[in-house]
Amino acid sequence: MKVDLTLEQIHAIVEPRSTRGTTTEPFRGIASLTAAGPGDLSFLGNPKYKGEVATSRASIVLLPPDFVAEPQANQWLLFVENPSVALARICARIEQQLWPKPAPGIHATAHVAAGAKVAPSATIGPLCVIEAGATVGERTHLQAQAFVGRDAIIGDDCWLMPGVILAAECVLKNRVRLQPGVVIGSDGFGYEFVGGRHSKVPQVGQVVIDDDVEIGANSTLDRARFSRTSVGEGTKIDNLVQIAHNVVIGRHCMICAQVGISGSTTLEDYVVIGGQAGLAGHITVGRGSKIDGQSAVNADLEPGSFVKGSPCLPYQLEQRVNVLRRKLPDLFKRVGAIEEQIAANAN
Amino acid sequence: MKVDLTLEQIHAIVEPRSTRGTTTEPFRGIASLTAAGPGDLSFLGNPKYKGEVATSRASIVLLPPDFVAEPQANQWLLFVENPSVALARICARIEQQLWPKPAPGIHATAHVAAGAKVAPSATIGPLCVIEAGATVGERTHLQAQAFVGRDAIIGDDCWLMPGVILAAECVLKNRVRLQPGVVIGSDGFGYEFVGGRHSKVPQVGQVVIDDDVEIGANSTLDRARFSRTSVGEGTKIDNLVQIAHNVVIGRHCMICAQVGISGSTTLEDYVVIGGQAGLAGHITVGRGSKIDGQSAVNADLEPGSFVKGSPCLPYQLEQRVNVLRRKLPDLFKRVGAIEEQIAANAN
Amino acid sequence: MKVDLTLEQIHAIVEPRSTRGTTTEPFRGIASLTAAGPGDLSFLGNPKYKGEVATSRASIVLLPPDFVAEPQANQWLLFVENPSVALARICARIEQQLWPKPAPGIHATAHVAAGAKVAPSATIGPLCVIEAGATVGERTHLQAQAFVGRDAIIGDDCWLMPGVILAAECVLKNRVRLQPGVVIGSDGFGYEFVGGRHSKVPQVGQVVIDDDVEIGANSTLDRARFSRTSVGEGTKIDNLVQIAHNVVIGRHCMICAQVGISGSTTLEDYVVIGGQAGLAGHITVGRGSKIDGQSAVNADLEPGSFVKGSPCLPYQLEQRVNVLRRKLPDLFKRVGAIEEQIAANAN
Repeated sequence: MKVDLTLEQIHAIVEPRSTRGTTTEPFRGIASLTAAGPGDLSFLGNPKYKGEVATSRASIVLLPPDFVAEPQANQWLLFVENPSVALARICARIEQQLWPKPAPGIHATAHVAAGAKVAPSATIGPLCVIEAGATVGERTHLQAQAFVGRDAIIGDDCWLMPGVILAAECVLKNRVRLQPGVVIGSDGFGYEFVGGRHSKVPQVGQVVIDDDVEIGANSTLDRARFSRTSVGEGTKIDNLVQIAHNVVIGRHCMICAQVGISGSTTLEDYVVIGGQAGLAGHITVGRGSKIDGQSAVNADLEPGSFVKGSPCLPYQLEQRVNVLRRKLPDLFKRVGAIEEQIAANAN
Repeated sequence: MKVDLTLEQIHAIVEPRSTRGTTTEPFRGIASLTAAGPGDLSFLGNPKYKGEVATSRASIVLLPPDFVAEPQANQWLLFVENPSVALARICARIEQQLWPKPAPGIHATAHVAAGAKVAPSATIGPLCVIEAGATVGERTHLQAQAFVGRDAIIGDDCWLMPGVILAAECVLKNRVRLQPGVVIGSDGFGYEFVGGRHSKVPQVGQVVIDDDVEIGANSTLDRARFSRTSVGEGTKIDNLVQIAHNVVIGRHCMICAQVGISGSTTLEDYVVIGGQAGLAGHITVGRGSKIDGQSAVNADLEPGSFVKGSPCLPYQLEQRVNVLRRKLPDLFKRVGAIEEQIAANAN
Repeated sequence: MKVDLTLEQIHAIVEPRSTRGTTTEPFRGIASLTAAGPGDLSFLGNPKYKGEVATSRASIVLLPPDFVAEPQANQWLLFVENPSVALARICARIEQQLWPKPAPGIHATAHVAAGAKVAPSATIGPLCVIEAGATVGERTHLQAQAFVGRDAIIGDDCWLMPGVILAAECVLKNRVRLQPGVVIGSDGFGYEFVGGRHSKVPQVGQVVIDDDVEIGANSTLDRARFSRTSVGEGTKIDNLVQIAHNVVIGRHCMICAQVGISGSTTLEDYVVIGGQAGLAGHITVGRGSKIDGQSAVNADLEPGSFVKGSPCLPYQLEQRVNVLRRKLPDLFKRVGAIEEQIAANAN
């Protein structure tokens, strides 16, 4: 990281309630408490690591407001409301330095079809393709080798990283961030079995992604059979996730890597899904539900559910079953012993 | 959807056995029975929703031939052999309007190497790469940013969507449709462990995809170690599926999203695999077998098998085991109670 | 395969301890014992197939040194230390013929930003993008449509296949081979939940890939929150694998397709992970551990562990539990019978 922040800037960014000590080391980067050396900024984000503060060689340490610590020589302690959030604000500043806003304009090697509308403040990077009728909003950035299909609509302040594919008719609202290789608008997987063959059901709907959604690398979202597949405001989707046709995802959900959601399923707001979980089609997952990693959900979940397992059970029950499951060899022996004893008693 | 269909055209496409009522609303689009409004066409594809017909605001409704219904005011009911198939035919017509056949020719920004053969009726879109010795058949469409490697062969009427990669020596027969980001011909995962290191076994085989196969976004199919990895006629593969080297897939199979099939495994015809299932290597899955989602298959399956679970069991047994599994806490208590009673009786 | 190898060349490549018979058929290709015909070379790599040697129509057969066999008419048997390794050496030679070293230089359609450094012996294929400040080492080959971000560093003799994305600041050391569609340096999945919204934690670290690593098609490796995500020397990663931010992977690991490794987890050297397994975050997997396919690992594993299941158990225990699990219907009946008998005895 080639970054440049003064102590004054750090102070202004994290707004500490109080500080102790000071340092003459210029800021060099961010590191964990144990990995940090001179010039590094570190932080206590998880109480689990509090024993590492006293011996950390970091020059700058962000700590919770009530944490009791003595600065070492040439060390600056900042006591902040929430060290993780304060660190995130510093990272945001570093991110601006690392990924400065690109100059607006369309790169000479990009192909923008006649009839596409690109806002003057947008940046279209090298070797992008924008088909006819597509719209790209203000300050939106297509980094490189992205594809925007016919009549697709992209709002303001979006960032499409290299290799993103947004197929025809699909819509991104504002501040949507798509990691490399995301595919939006592939055909839904729909066939009718006729005469011994799978006959394609054409998929003529769209995908609509609302404000402030982020989607991880190489994830795929299928267009609806007709109508729309949609992702609600503020939802975050990790890498290699599969969203099938006609799925409706609510607002502020978190969907971890390699999750698969089958067709026409609905997630209400604030649903959290752990990695590699799978959801059947045509079900509804109630608001605020949590689904543990690798679970299989085959039926509707009430709001506030917390489930685990394949097929899933209530979390506590699944945990209990898992503990007992490994005692099955013992249980079979116990039942065998009982049977022997009863047989012996009968003789 | 910007589509234009007259009532006469709809009548000609769906070939109803009979009709009731009529409508003056111009066709606007397709919607579910509950979501539809004036101008929308809807359909009863699943008996589960039959209660929604009477109150649907759709102007046009496709119904099964024996369904008993009165048209509402300004509503046109069409009784057809199979409403889902009739709808698919309408969607196919809409699809032709949305994705009209592109004009043939090679886009100025595409790179076609000397010695590649592109049929005059083929369309090579912007920023595609075709390496030397490759062949592209009649009316085949490379939409944009696709890659076709050295000596690869593509038949007639194929559609490679943006970002598809077809590596050297691989073959697509006719009417193959590849969704965005599909990779065909990546190296198989083969190594020999020699001297404490994994030494690469070069993968010098190919992948052959037969007629009418469709493959979903970002799926990956590895080339064979030598000989070929193959997918049979009419098989449909969903998104993010992994097909390892030397796998042989039969005709008319259905493979749902995120399935993984390990090396040298064979699927006979008409196999159906649910999402996220995993198949071990070097096994054979018999004709017409069904594998439920998230299952693990580690041994051959007889034709017509229906399995579920990780590791998989016959479907009915797995369902039964899953019901009992959640009663394990109770079972352990019951066995404990029996033991106590026996101990008490012994005293 | 259009390949050309004389018998003398084959002899020199495999260095047999002894041979029997000979053949006049020119070398045509490689095939399994049962599929081979005249001109084909075959091998006995797995004792399971030893019964197929006597009837194989292969013209050339690689056999273990102590294997007892009579050559058929016009058949050449070569007895070698390790037939699989010998075959791999032949495949390597074929690979050199199929993928000859490309001529150095930058293709006219590639976009290399001012300030990027490309070694004179490197090959930059059509429609690649190299951003400012990036470095590409000697003899490294970017095949086509690859992306190399700002200040990324690629060492010598790497091969980036079509559509690979190496984001800003990330590092590949030497002889790294990336299959098509690999994404290195996507953002880690990190958010703080503040005021009812998921607020992005900017990910400003990097990814560092050590010597001789190979990564499969469409796999994704996220950049660290700060510091680095890293993959150790000689490790091999299959297709569609997800590596989250701050993961540290040791040397000479094998990670099969569709595995997911959550944030900040560490793999020591020589770990082997079967397909579709999932690892929780912030755990350590000890040296030489083996994790079976579809397993879930939620806690540290001691060196040399061998685990299976979701959640995982020691392999032998999991196998035993799986055998008993399918006997649960019987066990419930047995316990019911005991209870009835006790009740009957009590009366």
